[in-house]
Amino acid sequence: MSEVVNVGILGRGTVGGAFRRLLNERADMVEEVSGRRPRVSGVLSRNRGDFDRLLARSEIVVELIGGTDPALDYVTQALEAGRHVVTANKQLLAQHGPALVAAARRGGAQLRFEAAVAGAIPVIRVVQESLGAIPIEKVFGIVNGTTNYILTEMARSGLSYEEALKQAQTLGYAEADPTEDVNGADAAAKMTILARLAFGVPVKLNDVPYEGIEQVKPDDLAYAKELGLSLKLLGVAERVGDDAISVRVFPCFLYPGHPLSPIEGAFNAVMVEAPTITEITMSGPGAGGSETASAVLGDVVSVISGGSPLFEENARLRVARDVEMAFYLHLEVEDRPGVLAQVAEILGQNEVSVRSVVQRGRGDDATLIMVMHPVSEKRFAAALKKIARLKFLRSPPRSIRVIEEEF
Amino acid sequence: MSEVVNVGILGRGTVGGAFRRLLNERADMVEEVSGRRPRVSGVLSRNRGDFDRLLARSEIVVELIGGTDPALDYVTQALEAGRHVVTANKQLLAQHGPALVAAARRGGAQLRFEAAVAGAIPVIRVVQESLGAIPIEKVFGIVNGTTNYILTEMARSGLSYEEALKQAQTLGYAEADPTEDVNGADAAAKMTILARLAFGVPVKLNDVPYEGIEQVKPDDLAYAKELGLSLKLLGVAERVGDDAISVRVFPCFLYPGHPLSPIEGAFNAVMVEAPTITEITMSGPGAGGSETASAVLGDVVSVISGGSPLFEENARLRVARDVEMAFYLHLEVEDRPGVLAQVAEILGQNEVSVRSVVQRGRGDDATLIMVMHPVSEKRFAAALKKIARLKFLRSPPRSIRVIEEEF
Repeated sequence: MSEVVNVGILGRGTVGGAFRRLLNERADMVEEVSGRRPRVSGVLSRNRGDFDRLLARSEIVVELIGGTDPALDYVTQALEAGRHVVTANKQLLAQHGPALVAAARRGGAQLRFEAAVAGAIPVIRVVQESLGAIPIEKVFGIVNGTTNYILTEMARSGLSYEEALKQAQTLGYAEADPTEDVNGADAAAKMTILARLAFGVPVKLNDVPYEGIEQVKPDDLAYAKELGLSLKLLGVAERVGDDAISVRVFPCFLYPGHPLSPIEGAFNAVMVEAPTITEITMSGPGAGGSETASAVLGDVVSVISGGSPLFEENARLRVARDVEMAFYLHLEVEDRPGVLAQVAEILGQNEVSVRSVVQRGRGDDATLIMVMHPVSEKRFAAALKKIARLKFLRSPPRSIRVIEEEF
Repeated sequence: MSEVVNVGILGRGTVGGAFRRLLNERADMVEEVSGRRPRVSGVLSRNRGDFDRLLARSEIVVELIGGTDPALDYVTQALEAGRHVVTANKQLLAQHGPALVAAARRGGAQLRFEAAVAGAIPVIRVVQESLGAIPIEKVFGIVNGTTNYILTEMARSGLSYEEALKQAQTLGYAEADPTEDVNGADAAAKMTILARLAFGVPVKLNDVPYEGIEQVKPDDLAYAKELGLSLKLLGVAERVGDDAISVRVFPCFLYPGHPLSPIEGAFNAVMVEAPTITEITMSGPGAGGSETASAVLGDVVSVISGGSPLFEENARLRVARDVEMAFYLHLEVEDRPGVLAQVAEILGQNEVSVRSVVQRGRGDDATLIMVMHPVSEKRFAAALKKIARLKFLRSPPRSIRVIEEEF
């Protein structure tokens, strides 16, 4: 008989149930590869069960309650008491990650969270374990399946945002309240976690500006289709200069042939760029119940087998306030002389350089579609604010970032 | 001052040099994340240097000599003496993997080999660490960059195999003697290693039938282009029924939209399929000097940090002798009555069911292109042998496997 490992589970929801079933199914195999057999020592929910009793009985605590209250309290107590914690809770980590890492150090315990980002794709492990060996330049990708599903359906079937969202809700790809997904907040939490790992910088959730996809119109996707571009909600964490990083979430056009272009539906994909490895791309389904349960069990096995994740802070890097990007700008205007000149003047005053302009339609249908050369995001935002005040606009201006093929 | 870790290097070639440089460049960062500073304790080549002396001075031995002699002897000695070994040597592992694992167990040492398969893509780590948590069904992909470069160029520019190979050699994507790459032997060695890890079965190199790309003609790629298919050299390791696995290497047509279709040039990509995770795809550049050095350093950091890879044999699975696949069959024939009937009769006798037939050209140019429904590879091979003897063939028959979209 080999030794038993007691695993306490916080959470009785979908993921909690899926994890419990998977742990039972795979107990033989886990014992075979690790020499120790996992056993569920107790399960408690947000409102039911005695946490102290569970803690006393468990060597590993698996947190699947979600939210920060009482998760923060439970996880902190567990770590300080020397219990290893495995969690899928991205909000908890994004808001309190550094404090939890400190608690883990005090307790000599491990904190694992592969399931918090990109479902079953082992992106946390790859980024974390690369830290010493590979000087990561950039980690970016599609980290929210709901928005990728919606954008894919808008592009494929010409649905409006509202129609595509409704379809996603019907099929279970979007929640009844989709706010955090569609406004980019969910992706921002995940990028906060990834950026800390990739660069060792204690990034705060507030450091991560985000935009969602609620403003995207079928027009924008029609434009993309015409040029072979695809539209994705991207999370980006990258080095900027020698001493800074930038972490952001925004919708973005990608050129055909970009490794993230073919990622469709509710899939996630993350790319890691570094000089010594060029780029690695990892893709797979986003976080469903079984993918999350698998990722959690993977962490549990890793803890049982004695692995120790690397995590170190690197105070030498700050969070940059501005970066350069190319932009697409969509203006619905009155078709009369001088319109383009006024727009061009504002752009010029803000040192925004125009790469291409197309006018479509005439009279009440006139639309200006402009693409800028890469420019300071702040300068572009300043120009956009002025353009929004122009009298001849028939609707608010819309802008979307663009990643062009290198040329 | 933190503790020093002595790293002995076997090999003074391209990869050995790149690793040495990278280790020096990253020593600060490795010390920061692991608490210990790596230092090169000695370097020896195939013919120069005293191995016993290097061994006595090193805690970790990095084997980058290549080949099996003297690598097998050195690595075995190191492991038995309790030295952790990191190697990029796929032939050594494919031929002697189980013996080396046994040596590692005897010596209480770790054996790491991320760099042996798929360059900087962390496929070994992902497969190995998934073992306990995820019941892998299938691991497959493009694990040879040379052949993928050649096939990409043949498809893109209509080059012949010989022309594309020459171009690959000029650009450094193929070696002066490309035999092991183009005939599939290199991919077979990598799939042997992956299959052992994914299924815990002591697969032997001899268990892995392989076909290369030397026989692929521009005609085949023209056919693929017409239907939107791409042609890839695939390595596949998969469960077959309840008690067996199959490991093979072969050129194969992929439907548009298959995650491996967009992988072009010298890139590698590996997919892992399992019920709980659907599928994960990982892609990146194949093994150049700097990618290999990065992967080796990643393993060194992991060893320094005290990670322990999982590895267990699973004697419950055998290697299957036959599997089902769909096939494309290209026949250059004399254009006269009865030709199709004779081919169809042979296929029917061997229970091979035809899905589509197209005849192209007339007279001396006549070509039959047939696609079969999935069928036992053995039965198809038996039919092909008989078809090859038909008098009206103008050249030997060519067949290529096909992975179709599920429908």
